[in-house]
Amino acid sequence: MPEQTTGPRPTLEAVASRAGVSRATASRVVNGGAGVRAPLVEKVRRAVEELGYVPNHAARTLVTRRNGAVAVIIAEPEFRVFSDPFFEQQVRGISRELTAYDAQLVLLWVEGPGDHERISRYLGGGHVDGALAFSLHSDDALPSVIERARIPVVFGGRPAPGTDPAVPFVDCDNRGGAREAVRHLVGLGRRNIAHISGPADQTSAIDRIHGYRDVLLDADPGLLRRGDFTEESGARAMAELLDRRPDVDGVFVANDLMASGALRILRERGLRVPEDVAVVGFDDMVSVVERTTPALTTVRQDIEGMGRLMVKLLMRLLDGTGPEVPASVITPTSLVRRASA
Amino acid sequence: MPEQTTGPRPTLEAVASRAGVSRATASRVVNGGAGVRAPLVEKVRRAVEELGYVPNHAARTLVTRRNGAVAVIIAEPEFRVFSDPFFEQQVRGISRELTAYDAQLVLLWVEGPGDHERISRYLGGGHVDGALAFSLHSDDALPSVIERARIPVVFGGRPAPGTDPAVPFVDCDNRGGAREAVRHLVGLGRRNIAHISGPADQTSAIDRIHGYRDVLLDADPGLLRRGDFTEESGARAMAELLDRRPDVDGVFVANDLMASGALRILRERGLRVPEDVAVVGFDDMVSVVERTTPALTTVRQDIEGMGRLMVKLLMRLLDGTGPEVPASVITPTSLVRRASA
Repeated sequence: MPEQTTGPRPTLEAVASRAGVSRATASRVVNGGAGVRAPLVEKVRRAVEELGYVPNHAARTLVTRRNGAVAVIIAEPEFRVFSDPFFEQQVRGISRELTAYDAQLVLLWVEGPGDHERISRYLGGGHVDGALAFSLHSDDALPSVIERARIPVVFGGRPAPGTDPAVPFVDCDNRGGAREAVRHLVGLGRRNIAHISGPADQTSAIDRIHGYRDVLLDADPGLLRRGDFTEESGARAMAELLDRRPDVDGVFVANDLMASGALRILRERGLRVPEDVAVVGFDDMVSVVERTTPALTTVRQDIEGMGRLMVKLLMRLLDGTGPEVPASVITPTSLVRRASA
Repeated sequence: MPEQTTGPRPTLEAVASRAGVSRATASRVVNGGAGVRAPLVEKVRRAVEELGYVPNHAARTLVTRRNGAVAVIIAEPEFRVFSDPFFEQQVRGISRELTAYDAQLVLLWVEGPGDHERISRYLGGGHVDGALAFSLHSDDALPSVIERARIPVVFGGRPAPGTDPAVPFVDCDNRGGAREAVRHLVGLGRRNIAHISGPADQTSAIDRIHGYRDVLLDADPGLLRRGDFTEESGARAMAELLDRRPDVDGVFVANDLMASGALRILRERGLRVPEDVAVVGFDDMVSVVERTTPALTTVRQDIEGMGRLMVKLLMRLLDGTGPEVPASVITPTSLVRRASA
């Protein structure tokens, strides 16, 4: 068991060792004692007492996958959970993979900090074996809320600095993907390449800004506009960009939804894509790129696959088998060329 | 506690009474025995044995709202959960109301019958205090799956005949609303009024067909086409209708999403709405009616309010307080007139 999930609490292993019984026997006693001979029950009970082992649900969760359920926590309010296709796609991968493990997915989201206490209680109440959390924000107490619940967790997306580094995460190569997008625009001969970024409190957005700056070291800060990953914010940022820098001839947009909003503004302003302004998105979200005009060139990340990977890492944490230490995974990205750039 | 939620299982109260201890003491013993003197622990253990009390989570759930969580089960696959705004709106009402009760919402959905066994185990495992289930289908075993879990439940939408009539539900006046929609079309002088219905295995769809037939007793069966509540199925049904009955001059569509698909086909065929064909939907789904051309006349139901009501009924079941027997609720509908009819 990794350090993060056990902490200073005495483990069942310690109880078994002190009682001189197998872990399975100790587990049976802690779970009610059925089928265990009385002297052994007594030994385990004494060890439990001496060590101060707390046989509550949360602790027992660590022993086995006894609840058969995994919480998926989206750190966004309900309206975003249901409107951003990114979440649907990630949840789809998670859902399919959990089904393969015969584990029940229970979906939770977070309207605001007022929900933290309740979510922490639920997670720590022995109702789920572990949690997968994504769309974390750096000013958000959610990671520590989840840690308090003392259940194994895997993050989707690299958490902000300050989060327990022992918690594994799955992310894509945000910075590398952004670099490829911007290099593509440079290769098309674009001189004034803007970037519409995601929110400053998410590492994926920050990494993509870094990728943009890696290629355009001396880009005018006026070419950088911030959105919040919603379609509307992409439209707003594009309008502001055109007002400030009408000479913009290329835009790398930090996700496809915002790119879709940006394309709408370019159309409304009578600008041709890609002739006047070339546009590259990020995600390769089927439900978005299929309906944009023109079709969107974008950086593909395997969102569904990342969801599956999160489940695999969590299951390894839960089973605790084998010598492999669960590690974080950065998956590759690739540029998908369509008409917009 | 209503009959449906307790059944023949021995209660903790019975254990306490037999052991001659308080319920709190019995509860502490069942939960591990910390802080209880050994002779009392022994008494309670004996009572548990004699009564065959099963100190599992499920049984304990019945005692109080101890889990602090409620399952919301949408009987649809994940792609519909995330794409039909009806679900988002109902979940929003439920979410807000559960927050007021400081209960954690956990969302589950059903890809297919293969999920039933796992869901039943989860629901019966003592992880939630109750369940709200909606979008039930008549050929679906889900209601009995939920009943097996022996937790209080409230349905969204009247369940199919054969479902335990003691389970309360919240629905809108589907039949009355449909009648009003069709009467409105008749009032506009339309002679060949078609109906695009929802799936035959959902009572809401069937009730709306009945409402249509209440007004148009001798309607040509060729004027009735079936969809499945998705936008695409509404488009397909409208195309078929126009091929069979090019004289159609009014359509009552069983939900707004399908109506949006129907409007698209009418536009593609060069037909004017409402001049050539008047269209009335059902739901008054803001995210849909706002983007149709022309704006959609529709039957409004208070989806968010129905979600809130489901929570209130469930909480009454859980608290079991007062003489009021939880009953089902049919909420009224109203016609909202816009440009399409």
